[in-house]
Amino acid sequence: MKYENITAEIIDQLTQIVGSEFVFTDEENLRKYGHDETEDYNFPPSVVVKPKNATQISEILKLANAHLIPVTPIGGQTGLSGGALSIYKGIGLSLQRLNQILEIDENNLQVTVEPAVITQVLRDAVAQRNLFYPPDPSSQGSCWIGGNVAENSGGARAVKYGVTKDYVLNLEVVLPNGKIIWTGANTLKNSTGYNLTQLMVGSEGTLGVITKIVLKLLPQNTHNILMLVPFFDANQACEAVAKIFHAGIVPSALEFMEREAIDWTLKYVSDVNLTIKDEIKAHLLIEVDGNYPEILFKDAEKISEILEQFHIDEILFADSNEQKNALWKLRRAVGEAVKSNSIYKEEDTVVPRYELPKLLSGIKAIGQKYGFKSVCYGHAGDGNLHVNIVKENMSDEAWQTEIPKGIREIFELTVALKGTLSGEHGIGYVQKNFMDIAFTSTHLNLMRNIKTLFDSNNILNPGKIFPD
Amino acid sequence: MKYENITAEIIDQLTQIVGSEFVFTDEENLRKYGHDETEDYNFPPSVVVKPKNATQISEILKLANAHLIPVTPIGGQTGLSGGALSIYKGIGLSLQRLNQILEIDENNLQVTVEPAVITQVLRDAVAQRNLFYPPDPSSQGSCWIGGNVAENSGGARAVKYGVTKDYVLNLEVVLPNGKIIWTGANTLKNSTGYNLTQLMVGSEGTLGVITKIVLKLLPQNTHNILMLVPFFDANQACEAVAKIFHAGIVPSALEFMEREAIDWTLKYVSDVNLTIKDEIKAHLLIEVDGNYPEILFKDAEKISEILEQFHIDEILFADSNEQKNALWKLRRAVGEAVKSNSIYKEEDTVVPRYELPKLLSGIKAIGQKYGFKSVCYGHAGDGNLHVNIVKENMSDEAWQTEIPKGIREIFELTVALKGTLSGEHGIGYVQKNFMDIAFTSTHLNLMRNIKTLFDSNNILNPGKIFPD
Repeated sequence: MKYENITAEIIDQLTQIVGSEFVFTDEENLRKYGHDETEDYNFPPSVVVKPKNATQISEILKLANAHLIPVTPIGGQTGLSGGALSIYKGIGLSLQRLNQILEIDENNLQVTVEPAVITQVLRDAVAQRNLFYPPDPSSQGSCWIGGNVAENSGGARAVKYGVTKDYVLNLEVVLPNGKIIWTGANTLKNSTGYNLTQLMVGSEGTLGVITKIVLKLLPQNTHNILMLVPFFDANQACEAVAKIFHAGIVPSALEFMEREAIDWTLKYVSDVNLTIKDEIKAHLLIEVDGNYPEILFKDAEKISEILEQFHIDEILFADSNEQKNALWKLRRAVGEAVKSNSIYKEEDTVVPRYELPKLLSGIKAIGQKYGFKSVCYGHAGDGNLHVNIVKENMSDEAWQTEIPKGIREIFELTVALKGTLSGEHGIGYVQKNFMDIAFTSTHLNLMRNIKTLFDSNNILNPGKIFPD
Repeated sequence: MKYENITAEIIDQLTQIVGSEFVFTDEENLRKYGHDETEDYNFPPSVVVKPKNATQISEILKLANAHLIPVTPIGGQTGLSGGALSIYKGIGLSLQRLNQILEIDENNLQVTVEPAVITQVLRDAVAQRNLFYPPDPSSQGSCWIGGNVAENSGGARAVKYGVTKDYVLNLEVVLPNGKIIWTGANTLKNSTGYNLTQLMVGSEGTLGVITKIVLKLLPQNTHNILMLVPFFDANQACEAVAKIFHAGIVPSALEFMEREAIDWTLKYVSDVNLTIKDEIKAHLLIEVDGNYPEILFKDAEKISEILEQFHIDEILFADSNEQKNALWKLRRAVGEAVKSNSIYKEEDTVVPRYELPKLLSGIKAIGQKYGFKSVCYGHAGDGNLHVNIVKENMSDEAWQTEIPKGIREIFELTVALKGTLSGEHGIGYVQKNFMDIAFTSTHLNLMRNIKTLFDSNNILNPGKIFPD
């Protein structure tokens, strides 16, 4: 790809658009905006700009097109696939100043929000009006709603309530050519033209810059029960997952954690206490929610009966909000804990949920073949297993040469099980060279052509999604 | 548009692809496949072919591209926007022989189905395994699942369970160039590349021919309560809708019927008995569902309390399955009943649900201005109001000149209320010249360019969606 360099003249024009206090070229800021949470990558842009609205973003994109300068949208920098990395340098477009909750529409159960609102802040704000925005990525305390839309983020509650895409009704988007459109309407149903809203969701900042988001909300549930179930066999924990749904129960969360995931996390979050027998190999964390406690007890009882068919230890029922929060804190910190423990690579495999045991045992066999250890956890109810491949004592050489082969085999297994490469993290920079496993060349070319249709000069977030 | 005619040579080649018993050129068959349920339109194709699989469809599309012949996919012919009409003649591609339920996957709560399976047949087949496919268009007894996907159909249960798009996980599609792809994966979550599945859903047969559909299923609910609520004021019925959701209840159906809709339908379906006081102006039909009757009673009680704030007559609680079926039969027959009564035009307006009273009173005012009568009913919980404009004694001239102006004003109102043109019927042939109301030229051109990207010769279902 042939891009032009950022010149003093370009900086000058950017300054005219956003004001000098929102243009940054110092080393510290460039590095600060050069990373997200994906391994240890840092690809600093040549300049960071912080526009205040869609109009300024439009002008920046027109400038970038005129001079063939890459533009990388930067959100909360919590991404796990490198979507916010400025691979080809150029302009790092921080959305930071678009950070307002514009309207909570209690009459229509909708919220209109700008991209830089922290997901947890949004969830809390609507909860204060007894409304519920279900998607809850583990990073919800720091990730931004705009990034959630760009990556189609999931979270623990997706198993009952769906992922980000299921809540996005309408988007204001600045197209790469600088034109601004609303993609749909603020309605629950829509059969009017092609669904550009859903084409934009999950497009990882490659088709447009999202500047306003209209989300559907639900009435807030009032009660829940949370249970932690210790298994003596990890595969049995996976097998139990499909059984629960098969019995007609849809839990509001159904999370899986391998033994080491929970051990490492207990060390990492010092304030959560939990004693685990040596023989325990995995846990399921299961939540049911609703408005009537007596029904939740019945559901929890049914779940317990199903689980007792497996080789499990005593189920822990969280008996206070503190204990619930502690268990959730533990689950949400697994990713960071594993990361703090070793150099690692994280895969976001997803399969139909009944295939989970085959996926887990397959991953372990592939690990044996290539000599790597993996720590697995994730949203088992969705068939979404996060595979952390940890380096530990592996040689640098083996890490460089063997791991890519192993990852390729993991993805081949995933696709053979009718699954795919990413359930909720996106492809971004780190998985793009595995796309041939999930897609035929016809399919990939169709996606490439859509990209070109939106962005003929390939200036918006280049180096993502598509194989080199 | 410049298309070529069907020659004897083309017929010969079609015969070679599908076999002579599946190629039809007789007048009767051409007329039979020239219509759907949209007003009185009949646009016969020049030839009807009935391929048996994706490979044959691929060959037909390649042939059509080579000779610039339009191809119109034809499903169950129950559409209400003219999507199956062969506007430019050419090949009428009946999907009739792709009519198998290929696999009900009880382990993963999924079903794989071909397009020509009747929606009700599919719903019944999965119900026998205690599984639930929620979307239930009023035409479910005759419409096909492929058409539901093409139009993104809704139905009464969409208010709680979502529309067709919310259940489509993966599609096998023959692209206009004859290539065959699967659009996604059989997973509940997917952040892998652009969402071509959702681009295909609701594209009204213009981007590809759908040949296999993987749908998500839910566990079957065991109980429901159905109540019919008579209102002395139609606007109050609309106002009550948002109040119910605001109280934290999500009914499984929330339907609105104006007085005349129900009167005409009672005449049309002779076997349903219901006596309605003269002063009643509208009804809401409300259903709650779940697994625990005691909870449903509580919800129904809460709903009753809310409704009693309005000027209503006594609520009828359906006390048997027979009565429930009778009430649903009544609701589902409204469309046909209105149609049998007069020449008409049906609009499928949709707005955020709280705006429903403004929409209804606005429509009545527009009717007064242009001298037409309208009968309104629909999925009020979704803000989706079907507006039947009936000709009755209007002069042919007024019908030709005034109605299009009135419809334009109705759509302008809809869009001003942050709604759009179609909630579940699609744009097709009959609404395409109103698209400028909902979309800017930038947006329309983007959609047109996507169409061209998929179908460079514009052979697949031309004359739909885009304004002339």
